Amino acid sequence: MLEKTTRMNYLYDFYNTLLTPKQQSYMSLYYLDDFSLGEIAEEYEVSRQAVYDNIKRTEAMLEEYEGKLSLLQKFQERSGLIKQLKTMLQEETPSKQAMLDVIAELENLE
Amino acid sequence: MLEKTTRMNYLYDFYNTLLTPKQQSYMSLYYLDDFSLGEIAEEYEVSRQAVYDNIKRTEAMLEEYEGKLSLLQKFQERSGLIKQLKTMLQEETPSKQAMLDVIAELENLE
Repeated sequence: MLEKTTRMNYLYDFYNTLLTPKQQSYMSLYYLDDFSLGEIAEEYEVSRQAVYDNIKRTEAMLEEYEGKLSLLQKFQERSGLIKQLKTMLQEETPSKQAMLDVIAELENLE
Repeated sequence: MLEKTTRMNYLYDFYNTLLTPKQQSYMSLYYLDDFSLGEIAEEYEVSRQAVYDNIKRTEAMLEEYEGKLSLLQKFQERSGLIKQLKTMLQEETPSKQAMLDVIAELENLE
């Protein structure tokens, strides 16, 4: 499991289009721009608690989407396979069959 | 644009986890098992119109999810690049740089 902030940044990246504009604003200020809950509350003229509740709910929604669509997990798996291919291509004479095997794994991930 | 049934099958494949159990049942009977609206209506003891309305709404939801997440579009783009890699590997001496270029495109798709 990635460190929480990193994970939320990734999940936000994959699923932000499914959030409301307000959820997007709070999450983006909190996770991308590193605002504090107090600063966001001041900016939007709401209570710190309201911002906190909204962000907690949004985090749970992002985890729920990941539970259903696994976009982050598949991204990580694809990245690993792509890295393998690049490593193979650095060899003097890469094995074509080994590369085809990795490509087949990439296809099966879909 | 794919032919509608094929496209709906793909979209259902990518987004079915975001649908309600009833939406999943109707869509799966209609698009995967080729039931008629009347047959589904009989099975669930509802009107043909109710099944029709539910399926139309679900189709619109699937297109909305695709508009937001583009999973089908990215899948098609990745498939094209993977096919290119496989074709290159069939050559006697594939160009490493050409393969790395395709792999870079794959990475940029994420």
